[in-house]
Amino acid sequence: MLHLTAALDPASQVPLYEQLYRSIAQEISAGALPAGARMPGKRSLAEALSVSVNTVDGAYQMLAAEGYLASRPRSGFYVQEYPARPVLTGETNRPPELPAAPAPEGPPVQYDLSTSGVDTRLFPARTWARLQKELLYTSPGLLARGDPQGEMELRQALAGYLEEYRGVRCAPEQIIVGAGIEHLLSLLAPLLPGPAAVEDPGYPRARQVLENSGRPCRFVPVDEGGLSVAALAASDAAVCYVTPSHQFPTGVTMPAPRRAELLGWAARRPGQRYIIEDDYDSEFRFDTRPLPSLQGMAGADGPVVYLSTVARSLAPGIRIAYMVLPVHLLPAWRQRYSLYSGTVGRFEQQTLARFIREGYFTRHLARSRVAYKARRTALAAALEDAFGPAASLSGLHTGLHLLLRLRGKNIPPDTALAAAARQAGIRLSALSSYYMDGPSACPPGTLVLGYGALDDALCAPLAAALSDTLKKACTAASASSSSV
Amino acid sequence: MLHLTAALDPASQVPLYEQLYRSIAQEISAGALPAGARMPGKRSLAEALSVSVNTVDGAYQMLAAEGYLASRPRSGFYVQEYPARPVLTGETNRPPELPAAPAPEGPPVQYDLSTSGVDTRLFPARTWARLQKELLYTSPGLLARGDPQGEMELRQALAGYLEEYRGVRCAPEQIIVGAGIEHLLSLLAPLLPGPAAVEDPGYPRARQVLENSGRPCRFVPVDEGGLSVAALAASDAAVCYVTPSHQFPTGVTMPAPRRAELLGWAARRPGQRYIIEDDYDSEFRFDTRPLPSLQGMAGADGPVVYLSTVARSLAPGIRIAYMVLPVHLLPAWRQRYSLYSGTVGRFEQQTLARFIREGYFTRHLARSRVAYKARRTALAAALEDAFGPAASLSGLHTGLHLLLRLRGKNIPPDTALAAAARQAGIRLSALSSYYMDGPSACPPGTLVLGYGALDDALCAPLAAALSDTLKKACTAASASSSSV
Repeated sequence: MLHLTAALDPASQVPLYEQLYRSIAQEISAGALPAGARMPGKRSLAEALSVSVNTVDGAYQMLAAEGYLASRPRSGFYVQEYPARPVLTGETNRPPELPAAPAPEGPPVQYDLSTSGVDTRLFPARTWARLQKELLYTSPGLLARGDPQGEMELRQALAGYLEEYRGVRCAPEQIIVGAGIEHLLSLLAPLLPGPAAVEDPGYPRARQVLENSGRPCRFVPVDEGGLSVAALAASDAAVCYVTPSHQFPTGVTMPAPRRAELLGWAARRPGQRYIIEDDYDSEFRFDTRPLPSLQGMAGADGPVVYLSTVARSLAPGIRIAYMVLPVHLLPAWRQRYSLYSGTVGRFEQQTLARFIREGYFTRHLARSRVAYKARRTALAAALEDAFGPAASLSGLHTGLHLLLRLRGKNIPPDTALAAAARQAGIRLSALSSYYMDGPSACPPGTLVLGYGALDDALCAPLAAALSDTLKKACTAASASSSSV
Repeated sequence: MLHLTAALDPASQVPLYEQLYRSIAQEISAGALPAGARMPGKRSLAEALSVSVNTVDGAYQMLAAEGYLASRPRSGFYVQEYPARPVLTGETNRPPELPAAPAPEGPPVQYDLSTSGVDTRLFPARTWARLQKELLYTSPGLLARGDPQGEMELRQALAGYLEEYRGVRCAPEQIIVGAGIEHLLSLLAPLLPGPAAVEDPGYPRARQVLENSGRPCRFVPVDEGGLSVAALAASDAAVCYVTPSHQFPTGVTMPAPRRAELLGWAARRPGQRYIIEDDYDSEFRFDTRPLPSLQGMAGADGPVVYLSTVARSLAPGIRIAYMVLPVHLLPAWRQRYSLYSGTVGRFEQQTLARFIREGYFTRHLARSRVAYKARRTALAAALEDAFGPAASLSGLHTGLHLLLRLRGKNIPPDTALAAAARQAGIRLSALSSYYMDGPSACPPGTLVLGYGALDDALCAPLAAALSDTLKKACTAASASSSSV
């Protein structure tokens, strides 16, 4: 007979049978109760511990269910063999140390000019909340499993919107809804052939996703007409990731003849060459009418996959992106992802579907376009005032960012300028950080200023502070270079 | 001088300058206006078309911006070279034919016993809607870009919940929030070594995701204690995907000694062997207390990645899953996915965080557990009544499905039984469809009945209809075999 040392606490919130279960399980795992030993009878253990027989029975049943004990009819409970507890990597008495968080970057950010920023005050939160609430109240069916490609109502609304505003030609069956560009791109990549070309400078995230998906990336230079199709054709790339409406980060728009050339590149090897058209912020074109999409020029079964997101047009915190596949890629898609679920909640999808269908989306875009255009104009004027001939601006016609290029001699590297700005509370990007193969090909002293999240009233003080900071940085660089 | 044939319609909603732009762009793309040709002067074209000079100027500026025309100072606008329009794959006058939708499966479904179903009537839609609306009204900051690993408030709430109810030991920094198990598993797979073991029978979707991620899969048999660790150890697998709390689909729970053995397998090769613990519906354990997670036995930096979802505990239509990484995998994660955004909307994440923090989640689970247990008991009783000794039930203690196994001779293949049921309006699964290597190893005549979405009142009629249908299918099979 074993001597159990269970200390049971009747005042605890944990039921007595569970306390007893834990205590015995602990002794068995620790090896204190040897395998094969017979456990005390229920009645005698209950007496010894001053608990009811039911309590002991509950604990024994749980121990048996979990394999600590075996019950033999008319004989009792026996301790089962329990493998020595393995010593596990990193097992210590204190919790393991977490990897250090990224080092703090400097003083608080006073002006945030990140390129992903949008003006959240423009978002019609009340309308969105009302639509979502109505769906939660009236459509409990949306709690069940949905179509993995996305809600049909949303895909219909998107097909109509894309045809009207972007010249995209597709049936709703060709649309895949997913939780972000990176997610959709990683699902798409395995369906496409060969190495991938990315714009240089371009989106580092597209390169990361393509490389993570096992697609080696070739870097294709960008000129004043966007991606160089000549350089693309000279590479071995089979897939071309491109931002024709508003090249990121230079801001140039690919002119129609270049678009036709790019489509020609793909058309020369049908089924073996593809274009991924990322149309991420084509909604915000201020001075001329937007060019229709490449997808529309190529047709519903052409070599173009169209990719876009509501991260800019609505808000980055709402994770809905979408992709239009050529018809002939659909069977491969359905086969490869036959057991995958969708990645966007159904209520959010249906909310967006109604938001588009009932006209809120285009009204929101029109309102946003006016607001962003005014801010763009105000910021450009403020920068011109503050910098005068010391800087030139470009990439003003589209999207939510512009380029500021310092003129003069002894301009420090743009990363040094961005770091100096950061120390002055201004968060912005160096153009060279978007160069795929290192900064050597980058024109000197160019900064990328996103104004989506910038307060209108801050345009002038920002421009003054930035001019002041950058002039000091240039003077310091000049002094140190002349002292050498 | 060119003869332009622009037919402008002043009554159209399209502005005149845009009509003119379209008309000229069309002629240039079609080759009707040769490269190098000088365009008519603005004033003379305006007169010829009876429009204002501004209209012509607007159209010319757009054409120049898009590369159709070039402007030469003091000379005018000239047609640019435009590559012949490429003939693209699949380009025809009619839209391409879409691949046929999956064939209709049979008569309308009267009883849906899919394993992914949940009872959506249990979902506290009003509370959820209220929390979400409050956040939309009060927290516009959530519209901006969020933490790619997930909202810290949600990860804190999950860490607390998982520690208390599942014995998971982790810091919030170890949690990754993502839009579904498949999504998280595809991000995880590239960080882990070698071939992967999956349970056989098991989740086909886990196998598909692992194989899509380039991990060859080994099939490890399941016995009455769950995955066979002996078979696992005999394979070359470096990763083991396992459902220890409630093996899918057999419903068995892995006893404590087997768990220790499994951890021992991983511990023998630290950093080279990993366990992926999918704890998908451990919330619904009816008859005994849930076993603590493998992750908790292994510790915060052990070889276990813990994976779960709210698809069962809340609803499949809400796409929130989460994963707990061992501390030592965090640096590799952060490096590989440094530019990826999160995949769950921030409002949904914060809604779930409040839902957990304010106690709604555990109350919902307690209420659901009672409802599902009652339904499980009613369904089991109805099936026993209807089938009598002709069938046995298993997998009753946990989760939202059970196994029904027909007894007797000449039982048809379970796929034939499932097809017969489907023809009678009952959707359920054949156990053999979860066997990885074909149905040969599968015990005959076993069906998987999910009761999450089943109406309580339908338990008895379903059992009667199912018994009727399956008896007829057996009789028919018996008659055809005796006639041979």
